[in-house]
Amino acid sequence: MRLRNKPWAKDFMAAHPDVLIHEEEGATIDWKSVFANENPIHVEVGTGKGQFIIGMALANPDINYIGIEHFDNVIVSALEKVIEAEKPSNLRLLRGNGANLEDLFQKGELDRIYLNFSDPWPKSRHAKRRLTHESFLARYEKVLKQRGEIHFKTDNRKLFEYSLVSMSAYGMNLQEVSLDLHAEMPEDNIMTEYEEKFSAKGQPIYRLEAMFNN
Amino acid sequence: MRLRNKPWAKDFMAAHPDVLIHEEEGATIDWKSVFANENPIHVEVGTGKGQFIIGMALANPDINYIGIEHFDNVIVSALEKVIEAEKPSNLRLLRGNGANLEDLFQKGELDRIYLNFSDPWPKSRHAKRRLTHESFLARYEKVLKQRGEIHFKTDNRKLFEYSLVSMSAYGMNLQEVSLDLHAEMPEDNIMTEYEEKFSAKGQPIYRLEAMFNN
Ligand SMILES: C[S@@+](CC[C@H](N)C(=O)[O-])C[C@H]1O[C@@H](n2cnc3c(N)ncnc32)[C@H](O)[C@@H]1O
Ligand SMILES: C[S@@+](CC[C@H](N)C(=O)[O-])C[C@H]1O[C@@H](n2cnc3c(N)ncnc32)[C@H](O)[C@@H]1O
Repeated sequence: MRLRNKPWAKDFMAAHPDVLIHEEEGATIDWKSVFANENPIHVEVGTGKGQFIIGMALANPDINYIGIEHFDNVIVSALEKVIEAEKPSNLRLLRGNGANLEDLFQKGELDRIYLNFSDPWPKSRHAKRRLTHESFLARYEKVLKQRGEIHFKTDNRKLFEYSLVSMSAYGMNLQEVSLDLHAEMPEDNIMTEYEEKFSAKGQPIYRLEAMFNN
Repeated sequence: MRLRNKPWAKDFMAAHPDVLIHEEEGATIDWKSVFANENPIHVEVGTGKGQFIIGMALANPDINYIGIEHFDNVIVSALEKVIEAEKPSNLRLLRGNGANLEDLFQKGELDRIYLNFSDPWPKSRHAKRRLTHESFLARYEKVLKQRGEIHFKTDNRKLFEYSLVSMSAYGMNLQEVSLDLHAEMPEDNIMTEYEEKFSAKGQPIYRLEAMFNN
């Protein structure tokens, strides 16, 4: 899917600047004026087709949501869904790379970061690319408020094991851990596309909330 | 099993003072002279029928092992097995309560503590009885060397989730986490009785190693 070429993507994306923002090198984004308010901002890194972040935005109108995704061919699907949902005013899509969070946000600007079904990068030589590698945790810490939170869901056991150890080594505090989220599904759980797919196969979904200790 | 009365237990236990030691109020035990050496000491709290601690003692002759169990009717089964195994000189059973660790050991005397399939105490009003409750962690920290380790295995998802959060809140560092130990069984894994039972049912076995940050 991700690799299929969508020649119309660029034009479609350019036609909806009220929803989709592009990361531009060196440029800073004034999120307060984008949202026209000072509500808390929650970001999802690796939003994919957007089901989670749209569901969150509709459920929580007093929180501003930004879904970051670096592949055009994927983010256009999210854009289509945002348009279908009538462009909630508290939601933006950001085409960009989670590795550049410090350029995209001011220090302490965010209240929470969501990571959902992040790419596992199973080979250890690719560990640095995992969104819970310490280099990413350091970025999250900078753009989050003091004692900011990471909420992380995945079906990938190895990535979850790695993340528990990585966050612990970074000095983060585990607030909540579920090793089978769907066994006692929380009422307010909003499923991602991957979550629907993997839980339907009977795989356990792992989830944690962790806080920086700063 | 635990509740069946074994009238012969007391006599049988008294007949093997070279293996089985009794916790006595106020009395301190000189473990160096018990083992007649200064090798590192690893303790299992809640040893049950002893399969794990006996296997460990046989596999690692340069480490001293102590299995603590508070029920007579259970520890006699461990004693029978220790006798069958010809009483390894680096192994002792201790009939006593893990809650009294600070009376049983000197400060910093232990190198490692094992918790295997500890009673889950699922009701939150019983949380204090869980062997990974902060009051127990505080005891372990005292009797362990600096940066001492807890190795914990269980099939009980809720207890494992609780323990991750509890250890994190205590400031411990997670060194290793496995959420399905038997998926890639480590060569040196020694199974406990409960581990055999629950893994045979296809339940995942959870395991962690955590270190005190002192
Ligand atoms: C496995 S998918 C999961 C999508 C969605 N979160 C879900 O749960 O259904 C991971 C997504 O993260 C995106 N992604 C991975 N690394 C990223 C990064 N550094 N910055 C932005 N997006 C990233 C990928 O392009 C992909 O769409
Ligand atoms: C569920 S069994 C597991 C036995 C063994 N570790 C295994 O994995 O097969 C837990 C054991 O811990 C013992 N136990 C629980 N709390 C204890 C405590 N505070 N001190 C000593 N033993 C304890 C119980 O009597 C029981 O035999």
